[in-house]
Amino acid sequence: MIFYDCSTAPNPRRARMFIAEKGLEIDTREISIAEGQQLSPDFLAVNPRATVPVLVTEDGTTLTENIAIATYLEAAYPDPPLMGTTPEEKGLVAMWNAIAEFQGGMAVAEAFRNAHPAMKGRALPGPLDLEQIPELAERGRARTAAFFDLLENRLSEAPWLAGDAFSLADISAFVFTDFARVIKMRPPENNAATQDWLARMRARPSASA
Amino acid sequence: MIFYDCSTAPNPRRARMFIAEKGLEIDTREISIAEGQQLSPDFLAVNPRATVPVLVTEDGTTLTENIAIATYLEAAYPDPPLMGTTPEEKGLVAMWNAIAEFQGGMAVAEAFRNAHPAMKGRALPGPLDLEQIPELAERGRARTAAFFDLLENRLSEAPWLAGDAFSLADISAFVFTDFARVIKMRPPENNAATQDWLARMRARPSASA
Repeated sequence: MIFYDCSTAPNPRRARMFIAEKGLEIDTREISIAEGQQLSPDFLAVNPRATVPVLVTEDGTTLTENIAIATYLEAAYPDPPLMGTTPEEKGLVAMWNAIAEFQGGMAVAEAFRNAHPAMKGRALPGPLDLEQIPELAERGRARTAAFFDLLENRLSEAPWLAGDAFSLADISAFVFTDFARVIKMRPPENNAATQDWLARMRARPSASA
Repeated sequence: MIFYDCSTAPNPRRARMFIAEKGLEIDTREISIAEGQQLSPDFLAVNPRATVPVLVTEDGTTLTENIAIATYLEAAYPDPPLMGTTPEEKGLVAMWNAIAEFQGGMAVAEAFRNAHPAMKGRALPGPLDLEQIPELAERGRARTAAFFDLLENRLSEAPWLAGDAFSLADISAFVFTDFARVIKMRPPENNAATQDWLARMRARPSASA
């Protein structure tokens, strides 16, 4: 297998943490987004949609999108389970992972990509060059604050996002929460349940993978 | 089980088609978004995030988010498989479903919700009332056109989005493509592979579920 990574970006980090939690070692190639390597002819031959992470499996199947890489690895390497075991648990992991992505990841990305000078003309990942929209940066900040509230509410009722077990959903939410540093936002210090969860997340070896 | 549906919206339609393809009959309640019923206290008690579809399972687990409902139903009712059988297939279905969602569904939603008078102050689904951003409507139209190209490229190399078998990814892409009528966009008539796929999709009983 070959894993195309980017050490500075949140989406590859989600896949990297998932791989580490599975205890897998995969041949890894670094694609520097800062240097625009995701738009190079060599990488576009791997993924014409110009996004990382990418996993190329043993049989040569190319998987882009975090959920695809996680779904493949969970099926091929079931232990430890990171996406639930019963139908209800599988549903809850998929749900909280999607919520983390839509309410958390997209909110931070909106705020970052529509305001940071380095992202000028790159307001979305992928092959289209899209101009920044300042109003969208502002909206992203409001949505990020709402995501921190949502996280605190949920973690006040369950130890991990999807319930009793650590899962893919925690990886996604943790990576996005941590990445919010690029827009200078952090969960409020008095969000006790979130701070406790963050400490448990940071203590996992995968957090520094 | 109870399924909370909305007959006019694309995301509930995806779940409805998935349920029909599984051959399941589930007790269904209509939540009218046009009448704002998703924001009523009764419905917020079911889903505080104010989105449809929602599936409440036999054991009382509440699942919001399409991918969660599909993941649960696939695990609880494996036949016919709609999310792949081998690890590679499962990965490919998850990948094309995520691409359909991000490149297709979000593009159409951006264009529709940021321009249509009925969506004033409701630029995103959920509990936050967000103002429309006209530039985002324009960007959504450009992204929808790019999605139609992507669809044609993919369907020129495989009969169904994820490969040889019909899957969840086809349901998502079909529903979003069809919903693009609200922004008066359709795949070009000379996109032959797309038109052939659309005809095969429309012929499925689930398309009128």
